[in-house]
Amino acid sequence: MKQSHLFTKTRKEAPSDEVSKNAQLLIRAGYIHKEMAGVYSFLPLGLHVITNIATIIREEMNALGGVEIQMTTLQDREVWEKSGRWNDEIVDNWFKTKLKNGGEVGLGFTHEEPLTRIVSEHVNSYKDLPKYIYQIQTKFRNESRAKSGILRGREFLMKDLYSFCRDEAEHTAFYEKSKVAYRKIFDRVGLGEKTYLTFASGGTFCKYSHEFQTLTVSGEDTIHLCEKCHIAVNEEIIKEVVSCPECNGALSKTEKAVEVGNIFSLGTKYASALGLQFTDEQGVKKTPVMGSYGIGIGRVMGTIVEVFADEKGIVWPESVAPFRVHLVAIAGADGANVMGEAEKLYNGLSSRGVSVLFDDRDLRAGEKFADADLLGIPTRIVISEKTISGGKLEVKDRKTGVVEMHSEEDFFKKCLT
Amino acid sequence: MKQSHLFTKTRKEAPSDEVSKNAQLLIRAGYIHKEMAGVYSFLPLGLHVITNIATIIREEMNALGGVEIQMTTLQDREVWEKSGRWNDEIVDNWFKTKLKNGGEVGLGFTHEEPLTRIVSEHVNSYKDLPKYIYQIQTKFRNESRAKSGILRGREFLMKDLYSFCRDEAEHTAFYEKSKVAYRKIFDRVGLGEKTYLTFASGGTFCKYSHEFQTLTVSGEDTIHLCEKCHIAVNEEIIKEVVSCPECNGALSKTEKAVEVGNIFSLGTKYASALGLQFTDEQGVKKTPVMGSYGIGIGRVMGTIVEVFADEKGIVWPESVAPFRVHLVAIAGADGANVMGEAEKLYNGLSSRGVSVLFDDRDLRAGEKFADADLLGIPTRIVISEKTISGGKLEVKDRKTGVVEMHSEEDFFKKCLT
Repeated sequence: MKQSHLFTKTRKEAPSDEVSKNAQLLIRAGYIHKEMAGVYSFLPLGLHVITNIATIIREEMNALGGVEIQMTTLQDREVWEKSGRWNDEIVDNWFKTKLKNGGEVGLGFTHEEPLTRIVSEHVNSYKDLPKYIYQIQTKFRNESRAKSGILRGREFLMKDLYSFCRDEAEHTAFYEKSKVAYRKIFDRVGLGEKTYLTFASGGTFCKYSHEFQTLTVSGEDTIHLCEKCHIAVNEEIIKEVVSCPECNGALSKTEKAVEVGNIFSLGTKYASALGLQFTDEQGVKKTPVMGSYGIGIGRVMGTIVEVFADEKGIVWPESVAPFRVHLVAIAGADGANVMGEAEKLYNGLSSRGVSVLFDDRDLRAGEKFADADLLGIPTRIVISEKTISGGKLEVKDRKTGVVEMHSEEDFFKKCLT
Repeated sequence: MKQSHLFTKTRKEAPSDEVSKNAQLLIRAGYIHKEMAGVYSFLPLGLHVITNIATIIREEMNALGGVEIQMTTLQDREVWEKSGRWNDEIVDNWFKTKLKNGGEVGLGFTHEEPLTRIVSEHVNSYKDLPKYIYQIQTKFRNESRAKSGILRGREFLMKDLYSFCRDEAEHTAFYEKSKVAYRKIFDRVGLGEKTYLTFASGGTFCKYSHEFQTLTVSGEDTIHLCEKCHIAVNEEIIKEVVSCPECNGALSKTEKAVEVGNIFSLGTKYASALGLQFTDEQGVKKTPVMGSYGIGIGRVMGTIVEVFADEKGIVWPESVAPFRVHLVAIAGADGANVMGEAEKLYNGLSSRGVSVLFDDRDLRAGEKFADADLLGIPTRIVISEKTISGGKLEVKDRKTGVVEMHSEEDFFKKCLT
């Protein structure tokens, strides 16, 4: 994409009421727009990142046997009354609104109840199970405090998968597989090393749930690490679980972290409440065992910003970056020649399947370089009279700051593998 | 995809409160689930169709120079007060809800106001214009009557593009280009022939707006056709426009139709209200001329069902069908052999890039054939002991009902071009 085609610009200052680092940087770089506290629109560059993260998650969910659907925001009170979660004293962050012709509806903050109802209309035999159903959909939570940018929104995009198994053993096998898939997702988006499988409080049907917590000072959670096993325990259960659940060793380090994903065994709670049953091989009616598996997509994006940004701006891992290459043309006295060469390279890279943001704007070099640093695209290539006369591209790695001169062929071979 | 992997099943009856043909068929075939009147979830097959329609629209919007973003559902009262549209007496189908820490917010039913605010933070010079910005996003309208299935939802997916031009001439040029793009979209989704560019009432800034109306008895609108020009006039302005606006000939036919898209010149209404301005070449402050361009994606899907369905079920055009081929294995006495051959063909088709729904379920042939007809996938292939011994595939065209025997190679060459 040509940068002149984008309508967004960078800005020096974030809105004064924006206190979080992730939203400050993302707003300044033109990735998002703050509509109100906890509510952000995704502008073209931001939508690219969101889409890249969603694609990685979708691939791993499909590999896990997931089937994708799209449920609704508007929620039928009836199904939530069956589980007891319609009550505002039980769930304190509902948004509710009224239908014109009477009746109150909610805005979905999660989807166990409506999905269980849907499944009950399609599943009735052991032959129909297990099933793993997910969506990538917008959730609404009426947070009284929304100061963490896109780490904790009132409106946010989430992947939520729900599993329906025939028994505990089948559920546990899938639950363990989902841990591996989650680990792979966080590896692929670049957060693997900093993300800890974390034991947290469970519920009626399971002793513990599992969170995926990424270390960052801006995190709202506190976790206790076993660095050897790359496992942690959430502060909320530290009195109960005093040592590493894996190796029994000491939890030697305490860190702030943000919960980028969680997996939860639900037992038969929702299936029972909604009357979901199946007939087993012997003709006996049974209740499926459920689990839920969430990843906040905006939250992953915000966490990546928090973890990797430096004093100059955002630093994206290649897998989620809005573009792979930021091509910056610096037109001097002989502007036409530089722009012509840059255009040629832009077309060449694009035709080889490399996604490029081409800074074709009529701005000073300093402004373009500052913008490139703020935007955080992994590789910056500068084309100027100097690079043209030298016959090489000036290639800068955003993360390390290392600048190298490469021929075009060299660049393909060495830098894009 | 293997049909056993889908969790949905077909059913004989739609819910008794569902009166629309589109939703009855889509529910019976397992494409959608009715959460409440006017609110439908998209199940795996339905999501495939929605995604296919969205992809076609996205391609044409990008070709038109559009940049994609994703705005929010929750709406800040402040921007809507500026345009006067917060008032429930002016806009009578708002959903509104309360923030926990005070203040009322709306659920977006359109996005002129918030986008104009966003653009005002990024655009300030004539060099920044024109810009064409779109999203594919969920809208909410508090309809008191919601009896048309997915033709008129309380919650529905829409593509909305907004244009920002420097003057009327630039606006008009884009407006005309958008007509061509819309025509192409409706051609590609299979509705071209039945869809009429229709003159409808305009607003403060333009005499007429243009709707794209698809002929179907279930339509809520009445239009008057000039069949020669493939143009129509909406009943609402028929007293004003009594002949074809193109050829001045008689409007010879009156038909029911559903509005699948519309384009609208907005003049400077929203830009003025929100204070969006730019500086022209002479340094003079000016107000951009805007337009809005909508297509209801669920509505397009519902209209396709209404228009093409026959007494046996849904009939999808190839471009939007959830799968290109429905492979039905009929296992007789020697079941293993049939399933093995079917699996081979499934893999062969898939590896050649053909999307296949493989009916691998343990059901009677009659049930499988009835399901295939109801689901409406364009091409059905039957594999049975008979077809295997004959060395050919039994290929049925869903639309025409014509059955032919083809070798696998033949099928690729003749049927998939």
